[in-house]
Amino acid sequence: MIKVIETIDVMRAYIKEARFAGKKIGLVPTMGALHEGHLTLMREAKAVCDVVVASIFVNPTQFGPNEDFAAYPRKFENDCRLAQGVGVDAIFHPQPSEMYPPGYSTYVNVSGITDKLCGQSRPGHFQGVATVVTKLFNIVQPDTAFFGQKDAQQCLVIQRMTADLNMDIQIVMVPTVRDANGLALSSRNAYLSPEEIQAALVLAQSMRLADHAVKAGERNIAAIRDMVRNKIQSEPKAEIDYVEIYQYPDLQATDVLANKALLALAVRFGKTRLIDNIILSV
Amino acid sequence: MIKVIETIDVMRAYIKEARFAGKKIGLVPTMGALHEGHLTLMREAKAVCDVVVASIFVNPTQFGPNEDFAAYPRKFENDCRLAQGVGVDAIFHPQPSEMYPPGYSTYVNVSGITDKLCGQSRPGHFQGVATVVTKLFNIVQPDTAFFGQKDAQQCLVIQRMTADLNMDIQIVMVPTVRDANGLALSSRNAYLSPEEIQAALVLAQSMRLADHAVKAGERNIAAIRDMVRNKIQSEPKAEIDYVEIYQYPDLQATDVLANKALLALAVRFGKTRLIDNIILSV
Repeated sequence: MIKVIETIDVMRAYIKEARFAGKKIGLVPTMGALHEGHLTLMREAKAVCDVVVASIFVNPTQFGPNEDFAAYPRKFENDCRLAQGVGVDAIFHPQPSEMYPPGYSTYVNVSGITDKLCGQSRPGHFQGVATVVTKLFNIVQPDTAFFGQKDAQQCLVIQRMTADLNMDIQIVMVPTVRDANGLALSSRNAYLSPEEIQAALVLAQSMRLADHAVKAGERNIAAIRDMVRNKIQSEPKAEIDYVEIYQYPDLQATDVLANKALLALAVRFGKTRLIDNIILSV
Repeated sequence: MIKVIETIDVMRAYIKEARFAGKKIGLVPTMGALHEGHLTLMREAKAVCDVVVASIFVNPTQFGPNEDFAAYPRKFENDCRLAQGVGVDAIFHPQPSEMYPPGYSTYVNVSGITDKLCGQSRPGHFQGVATVVTKLFNIVQPDTAFFGQKDAQQCLVIQRMTADLNMDIQIVMVPTVRDANGLALSSRNAYLSPEEIQAALVLAQSMRLADHAVKAGERNIAAIRDMVRNKIQSEPKAEIDYVEIYQYPDLQATDVLANKALLALAVRFGKTRLIDNIILSV
């Protein structure tokens, strides 16, 4: 039976024992409502680590005041069953008051790469992410932590933070898992009506257009971006938050594609904001 | 001979070996120009830890643009000799470029207790402190870290940060070391002329007044503060930056002394800014 741990002290004791036994520890931080994307991270973790801890914590500090913190899907029992099925050893499932007790006042900020894309659309989001991931890293002390490319900017923020703060942890970015029609798996897909799911396929289609254009020789960033925007705008249910292309991995602006670039987008369908991305490479 | 380590990788390897041998590790972070205050921290560390690492790093990010970063005293060879004399096992002495390589962009902020005293006089100072201490903690991974009460607000910031970010490190605050006349030892005392040293004795004298007043029954915070200010202003060479009293340890404002309070001051003598403090207790 999978071990469910709700307090920091018990988590630490569990990890100390595993360390003492010489185990290699993997961490998969999640907000629960697990789907095949999360399970892929867990399988990757299990393949290279002896003990895999998945955290399930809907982190209040990474949601803005008008965002979907309260509505975010919570399916804890099902999540435990799914995690157990892919060999996760322990679930860390703290209450918000365990993570942010009264008087809490410390935050981690990564500047530069957080001033664009989701950092611009969701002020404070990456401060919340960097802070909770620092806490989870300090509690679980993993050798390796696994994050999905679906949140590519988040991966870059965490890689930057880990390097800057000299955390002795390897960060692995795992490719996005998509359904048969190309829609990136996301816990927020549960918010979509059948018509919105159909409409949201335009995201993967638009990125495929960009990828084909690059493979055919297009190097003009504005042209590629406009192609993606136009395709998305052809879908009446889609409302663009951003569609941008930046150099990868430093997220600097560029006019001409050279080497690698991140094509990232955030688009609303009804009340639901979806993000997706691909790495374009020459 | 004391081991001098200049790179993060070598420091990590040294610590891994010590950990593997089951040693308890102590860290004394310093900016060098060691005096008896630092040496007291190191002796305390050696008394309770098997391996003591002292860092000597004049951290650029905790100095403001018009502060004394360039002039700050650097006496590395003498420091090594002194540290060896009190049993320090290794000195971590990185270059600024080792700690803050190009592209560096992550900072740790503690809010609340940093908006007053030195946090108000020196904007960005505690962000620099919290960030470099986080890095040192992640590099050295000590069981216990030792800080001097002379920098009481710094101790409180680090205690808050360590608790908030779930760092598994015990923070020990060691009482201020003073010379025979009561002057708190500080690397910055080296800036003072003989006349300024004489004038600076007013700091300890003013705090002794406050302490006596409290022991005699005074509980009015404004009255105690004014007594200290008046005493300091009686010295023509002294220019007050701040003299404040806050509840200890939460640094909340209060009108009436109850339990414990921090009497903290920052005063300039010529170009030199000195800080000092005592904990008043009922």
